[in-house]
Amino acid sequence: MATNGAAPPMIVTVTGAAGQIAYSLLPAICAGRMFGPTTRVALRLLEIPPAMTSLGGVVMELTDCAWPLLASVTATSDAAEAFAGTNVAVLVGAFPRGPGMERAELLAKNAGIFRAQGAALDAGAAPGCKVVVYPDVTRAKVAGKPEVDVVATMGGQQALAETFIPTIQKRGAAIIAARKMSSAMSAAKAICDHVATWLGGSDGATVSMAVAGSGEYGVEAGTFFSYPVTCEGGEWTIVEGLAIDEASRKYIDATSQELQAERTDALAVLAAATGGKL
Amino acid sequence: MATNGAAPPMIVTVTGAAGQIAYSLLPAICAGRMFGPTTRVALRLLEIPPAMTSLGGVVMELTDCAWPLLASVTATSDAAEAFAGTNVAVLVGAFPRGPGMERAELLAKNAGIFRAQGAALDAGAAPGCKVVVYPDVTRAKVAGKPEVDVVATMGGQQALAETFIPTIQKRGAAIIAARKMSSAMSAAKAICDHVATWLGGSDGATVSMAVAGSGEYGVEAGTFFSYPVTCEGGEWTIVEGLAIDEASRKYIDATSQELQAERTDALAVLAAATGGKL
Repeated sequence: MATNGAAPPMIVTVTGAAGQIAYSLLPAICAGRMFGPTTRVALRLLEIPPAMTSLGGVVMELTDCAWPLLASVTATSDAAEAFAGTNVAVLVGAFPRGPGMERAELLAKNAGIFRAQGAALDAGAAPGCKVVVYPDVTRAKVAGKPEVDVVATMGGQQALAETFIPTIQKRGAAIIAARKMSSAMSAAKAICDHVATWLGGSDGATVSMAVAGSGEYGVEAGTFFSYPVTCEGGEWTIVEGLAIDEASRKYIDATSQELQAERTDALAVLAAATGGKL
Repeated sequence: MATNGAAPPMIVTVTGAAGQIAYSLLPAICAGRMFGPTTRVALRLLEIPPAMTSLGGVVMELTDCAWPLLASVTATSDAAEAFAGTNVAVLVGAFPRGPGMERAELLAKNAGIFRAQGAALDAGAAPGCKVVVYPDVTRAKVAGKPEVDVVATMGGQQALAETFIPTIQKRGAAIIAARKMSSAMSAAKAICDHVATWLGGSDGATVSMAVAGSGEYGVEAGTFFSYPVTCEGGEWTIVEGLAIDEASRKYIDATSQELQAERTDALAVLAAATGGKL
């Protein structure tokens, strides 16, 4: 395979690198499914100290695979080292909700993790660095998509509401019930496609991406929300003016309110943990 | 991605399809890493009945990935259905050795599995079907490769014998010790590369493949052994006449004897189980 040997490799940071999603994601990145078949990749793998032994096994396997595009692999538990000069940061690692765990406790754990990683990104990432946060694969929604043609195909609005939407909402749980493990293959595919479209462009097509808007479609400005976007030159642009029917309006409003409540709670938890300094 | 819509899809059977190696292998096949970026694939996934629920979860994820090249997925516990008309059969599934399990018991389980699958392949596979058996990733050997240039690079014959070869021999165990799970990513990569080279050709390069020889390099005829081969037009040809030094000769002889002993035992176990009818 011809490689662009002259160009420096893309530096890609993956957090939660010893986890199941990363185990599906890393070979896809190394095979060129994120940056194309000629772009070399330097992997920076971040994990918490207790997972470093396991991460060592992943590094062995990446080495054994002898990927032609893989320029280097760094395994570290130091966020500053992981994010220094990074071009693309994929924040897969998050604290999972355990049995009996309070929502506030979960929020505190994860707000702390992402706050520390955000600070390291601010301090060290390359200019124009792309950051992908994908902590919750069960939050997929059809709202916000131009779904008009889909509705008829799915048997009308009622069938959509009664069958298709609940199936999507419960898909993560259904896969866990079947596999006894959460989905990793499909999450990795989504992450790869997402970054490939973001960097490589959407060829004029409208795709869904969770991005921070400026109040489009009645969602509070600054909320990361699944918007219809086009991508070109490494930048996304929200597609405005799509017709939103009454059913979609309700889904959008409910999701928007959920996200705002979650952000308020997370900020409160962080403020309490840091004595008011954010 | 442009697909060759007119051609019928390649029918690919994967056994042990709910297992960890298949979980890494299936997305690679669907991404075109086995047959290239325009060949559609029809997957036939074989599992034992207790694993069918888990396999259902894998099918959900394959569906969710929306692979452009994936023409269909069939999940079945019926070997005849799995192998009917198959073009490429990847026999990943095997009975693992448990704690305290006798070698003869392991051999009997696996000889039975592969005997049944072999019969189904004989009965139903497409003409020219390629069959890949990859039950033991720890059996990788450097013997038989043209390793002359490698020896100097690795610090000479003594360093090779004392450091490199034991590292390779114990690699599978090292990865299990680190990950608490056996290697799947690198096994899947090896399977994909293997089939891609077999079908697509090796461009004149010599690669290692475990194939049944006719006595080349002093290995008993009919033994599947890791030989140096070239591939063209979907056929492999053993490269003869490579110089074998004294150290490699010993490794080849030892491995050859191990494999012959294993085959003798497997045939005896099968003969006992079937009252002498094979």
